[in-house]
Amino acid sequence: MPKPPTADRRPPSADRLPPFLAACYRQPTPYTPVWFMRQAGRYMPEYRALRERYGLLELMREPDLAAQVTLLPLRLGVDALILFADILLPLEALGLTLHFLPGKGPVLEPRLTPDRVETLPLVDVHEALGFVFETVRRVRLEAPQTPLIGFAGAPFTVASYAIEGGSSRHYIETKGWMYHHPQAWDALMKRLVRVTLDYLKAQIDAGAQAVQIFDSWAGALSPGDYARYVKPHVQALLRGLQATGVPRIYFSTGTAGLLPLFQDLDAEVIGVDWRVPLGAAWEAVGRHHAIQGNLDPVALLAPREVLARQVDAVLAEARGQAGHIFNLGHGVLPETDPDQVAFVVEYVHERSSPLSADG
Amino acid sequence: MPKPPTADRRPPSADRLPPFLAACYRQPTPYTPVWFMRQAGRYMPEYRALRERYGLLELMREPDLAAQVTLLPLRLGVDALILFADILLPLEALGLTLHFLPGKGPVLEPRLTPDRVETLPLVDVHEALGFVFETVRRVRLEAPQTPLIGFAGAPFTVASYAIEGGSSRHYIETKGWMYHHPQAWDALMKRLVRVTLDYLKAQIDAGAQAVQIFDSWAGALSPGDYARYVKPHVQALLRGLQATGVPRIYFSTGTAGLLPLFQDLDAEVIGVDWRVPLGAAWEAVGRHHAIQGNLDPVALLAPREVLARQVDAVLAEARGQAGHIFNLGHGVLPETDPDQVAFVVEYVHERSSPLSADG
Repeated sequence: MPKPPTADRRPPSADRLPPFLAACYRQPTPYTPVWFMRQAGRYMPEYRALRERYGLLELMREPDLAAQVTLLPLRLGVDALILFADILLPLEALGLTLHFLPGKGPVLEPRLTPDRVETLPLVDVHEALGFVFETVRRVRLEAPQTPLIGFAGAPFTVASYAIEGGSSRHYIETKGWMYHHPQAWDALMKRLVRVTLDYLKAQIDAGAQAVQIFDSWAGALSPGDYARYVKPHVQALLRGLQATGVPRIYFSTGTAGLLPLFQDLDAEVIGVDWRVPLGAAWEAVGRHHAIQGNLDPVALLAPREVLARQVDAVLAEARGQAGHIFNLGHGVLPETDPDQVAFVVEYVHERSSPLSADG
Repeated sequence: MPKPPTADRRPPSADRLPPFLAACYRQPTPYTPVWFMRQAGRYMPEYRALRERYGLLELMREPDLAAQVTLLPLRLGVDALILFADILLPLEALGLTLHFLPGKGPVLEPRLTPDRVETLPLVDVHEALGFVFETVRRVRLEAPQTPLIGFAGAPFTVASYAIEGGSSRHYIETKGWMYHHPQAWDALMKRLVRVTLDYLKAQIDAGAQAVQIFDSWAGALSPGDYARYVKPHVQALLRGLQATGVPRIYFSTGTAGLLPLFQDLDAEVIGVDWRVPLGAAWEAVGRHHAIQGNLDPVALLAPREVLARQVDAVLAEARGQAGHIFNLGHGVLPETDPDQVAFVVEYVHERSSPLSADG
């Protein structure tokens, strides 16, 4: 397997890391680095043009196309790229079929049931998901100067799709597993951690210089349930990545009430949504973590002066301390004007630079 | 207009208040009072039998039926009743048409637009919503011993339905109003506060002994947007109710990151969801408020021992301090077994009584 450029795989002590990677390690940076969740997506005309010709899964499974999409946000001036893929791809490797229905989101068939955990196939991620690693290699060759973030879903969030058969409002079936079938739940979490570890390690081997774990729906859980049924498995996943030497970002939404439980997670960076002040979130998770966030994605639809005010508010919460990575609190919405996204990149860089008059 | 029994309308200093009302004023109670949001609803066979014969809006608009539904949870042993109605009823009085579509929830037509705010009709709530007040009177006559909670939607949450035309995921149109049409937003909020004040005062005149303001979707907002566009109007509504002398409950979900902003709200009680530890929530809103919550509604679907453990966890967070009203973090789910609900009432009463061995 061709090895990627290794220049950016230096240990945290090395200097001259790109700003995004330096910020992951809470090292000072010349400006606050910026990237956006779903920065390559439906809000971009170039992406929509590709989607007119290819299905969503087709775009992800064809490395040439997936790399092309991953690279699109370069023109916006972002400080990191993120692999174009989906957190549900590994479920296909576990024998579920994934569709995306217009207006309904992902659908997984058949729904996973407790009796089937032990019969899930043992997955060779290279065989089942090799196209993802090939995409990573191509992106690194095309944009060797820009850090590339790999990613995967966290075990709870991925399991919720498999168990509910898609998105969910109340997570009745998923919580039902926890409450009624705690052993099957534990077995499922362990299986997902193992597959996800293989999957992320292979992304890192292919050249990913950081990884983000999306626990997007952890906010559905009470702190007690999170601590009992979910956190041990998140921690196992994070610890399993320790030896790779790349920074780990743990992202979730709706978790303002869970943040103190993230204090001892082995992640360099905690990503938070816009429903909590960034400063309070940083205090709650502990200053030993870097923090990522947290502009409301809807703010990108606001008039320029309102948008600027909201960006300023996020930067003010971060107080210019080393270890802030600017991002949205969740993905860019399809309704967004790309010019607004480019404006935020430029504005954050300018306002956070020491050369800025009042930055 | 017939006046209700006034025995329970005594000022907070009076003793022998029913436990629910005493807890609203943070007075000691012989046990922790309990009620449930949506305690009269689809999970009850009696309710489903009525729904086979009547439409949802029909049940609400016919005082005999609405009172009958309101009273159903008496058999569960709850410490308070809540009016059977919907937060969207006042929007009909403002000229919007409300439907409930199976599986889709409420639909409002036509969607409210900024240019129409000034042309909204001036509403006489007695004319438009008299059936609600008649329901309140009948419930008080039927169950004079059990406190009755009236309610209304908070201006942001009600506006979001009117502007989006129903439920929403991202609140793009609603936030768009705030950002692009701040004056029309302000005018709409003021109009909704005025109508809601009239509506709640008439419920109180008819006999409601407490009121809950449902700001169910406030959790979609960043702290900055909540403080700027929403909180002043919530506070105006709460202050407008001051002279009525009944306790005010301000309820929201997904607002763990907003709780410090609730400290100075003029509400006797703050209701919180299950996504935050009750003790931390109480600290965040301040001990001068009573606190209501916060069992995960899905816990009612758990095996009895898991349910008991989760109830214990909520009670442990409250530490037996005066001013805790036990409730769910949101409404009872239709999938719930009524026996589980009755169990929680009995269990909370028993575990929180000083006579309990380890309560």
